[in-house]
Amino acid sequence: MGENSAAGETRWAMTVAYDGSALQGWQSQPSGQTVQDLLEAAFGKIVGKAVRVHGSGRTDAGVHADGQVFHVDLPGRLRLASDKWPLAMNTRLPKSIRILDARVADREFHARFSAKGKVYRYRFVNGPIQLPRDAGWVWHHPQPLALDLVEEALGMVAGTHDFAAFAARRGNEPDPLPEDYFVRTIHGVEMKRDSRGVELTFAGDGFLYKMVRLLVGGVVSVGRGRITQDEFRLLLEMPSGKMSPFCAPPEGLTLERVIY
Amino acid sequence: MGENSAAGETRWAMTVAYDGSALQGWQSQPSGQTVQDLLEAAFGKIVGKAVRVHGSGRTDAGVHADGQVFHVDLPGRLRLASDKWPLAMNTRLPKSIRILDARVADREFHARFSAKGKVYRYRFVNGPIQLPRDAGWVWHHPQPLALDLVEEALGMVAGTHDFAAFAARRGNEPDPLPEDYFVRTIHGVEMKRDSRGVELTFAGDGFLYKMVRLLVGGVVSVGRGRITQDEFRLLLEMPSGKMSPFCAPPEGLTLERVIY
Repeated sequence: MGENSAAGETRWAMTVAYDGSALQGWQSQPSGQTVQDLLEAAFGKIVGKAVRVHGSGRTDAGVHADGQVFHVDLPGRLRLASDKWPLAMNTRLPKSIRILDARVADREFHARFSAKGKVYRYRFVNGPIQLPRDAGWVWHHPQPLALDLVEEALGMVAGTHDFAAFAARRGNEPDPLPEDYFVRTIHGVEMKRDSRGVELTFAGDGFLYKMVRLLVGGVVSVGRGRITQDEFRLLLEMPSGKMSPFCAPPEGLTLERVIY
Repeated sequence: MGENSAAGETRWAMTVAYDGSALQGWQSQPSGQTVQDLLEAAFGKIVGKAVRVHGSGRTDAGVHADGQVFHVDLPGRLRLASDKWPLAMNTRLPKSIRILDARVADREFHARFSAKGKVYRYRFVNGPIQLPRDAGWVWHHPQPLALDLVEEALGMVAGTHDFAAFAARRGNEPDPLPEDYFVRTIHGVEMKRDSRGVELTFAGDGFLYKMVRLLVGGVVSVGRGRITQDEFRLLLEMPSGKMSPFCAPPEGLTLERVIY
């Protein structure tokens, strides 16, 4: 029976980009208008049965991705070449979601648990007017901001910290919390400015729930003079239950890349 | 009576940017979802009566602007400083339309008839996949294209030509047509390529209806091998009633600037 008797299923890893402004986040919702739902619906049409996709992590409504990764197990008889999957999927997806590439993965590969790190980018514009093309893609921060102070605060974020002040609680945390529960390492931060706005990049071994947006809210709060550099440093170095003073809105955030 | 007796009305010139993908073009329509309609509605709320705005020219549904210019006559008693107009208007406009600046103009200034030239930009991506963030902003051209041929054809466009082959008819042309009716001068053309796609720029003293899109359709038809360079040259140099073989879609087009 040749092809049909091939060993059950093949695990695929695929990279996907999406425009979060048109979607209700990654994770499946009754509305069906999430990335996971729309991917599973498109696979369902090709495969002819329900399949489950597993992302490297969730992104909230409004958050974008240039390089989200997921894995999916597909029937082994579907011998579609790697370079055919993007087209086959994209014709069945809204334009707000595009499969960029697909490759066969090891059985042990897991989009979430195999990830060694991620890179996020956060964009904002600081001025009275936001260009129409940036609406939904860039946070508009009209109030004056000392960008030098933002950059100095950003520099403090690099390194290994207990990020408890920069982690929204989901309500399903273990009790008692392991001591290192909120500890993560940020390998690199960068701030770039151009005529279109400001771009903050965060590369790290892992990110807690809403962590990038709470970090951006923190460094921007320093730039606005709402908290001092020392207060920000304390949030990073001696977490005491105090939270970052602000969570930057989702539209400025893009998951750029997942590192394996 | 001081301010109220000031000489009737003041002529203002304003620059506006818009996201054409969310709008039904410049010119007023019964739907009310055009740039002109939405600007007039916002002015109406501020002024308390109907006002008419006059654009430098129409843009079709789906076409964007980074620097469209219009003039409007407002009651002289409205002594709003120039730098207050953008904010006052933008709070009353959808995010797809932003007033960028405003200045008092001479009585003789007319956004359309005073214009000495315009600069348009056309963006397309040539590859199998269009990124979600480019949907609505960039033309997706998946078929193979010889970009060197596109650039060579583009070079032929510069100069003074009878652009009859690159002008859609509105049906209200004079009869008989004046000999120079379709003659325009293109001062400069440019092609830039980067990782995100291809950008064609056209600067000229005036543009006919759908002219940029018909020019882009023409140079891309050369790049695809649908017409030869000589055939394209003939369309420009010896118009014979033949039209450009293709009109590129509106989403790639942006009115960058109006020159006065």
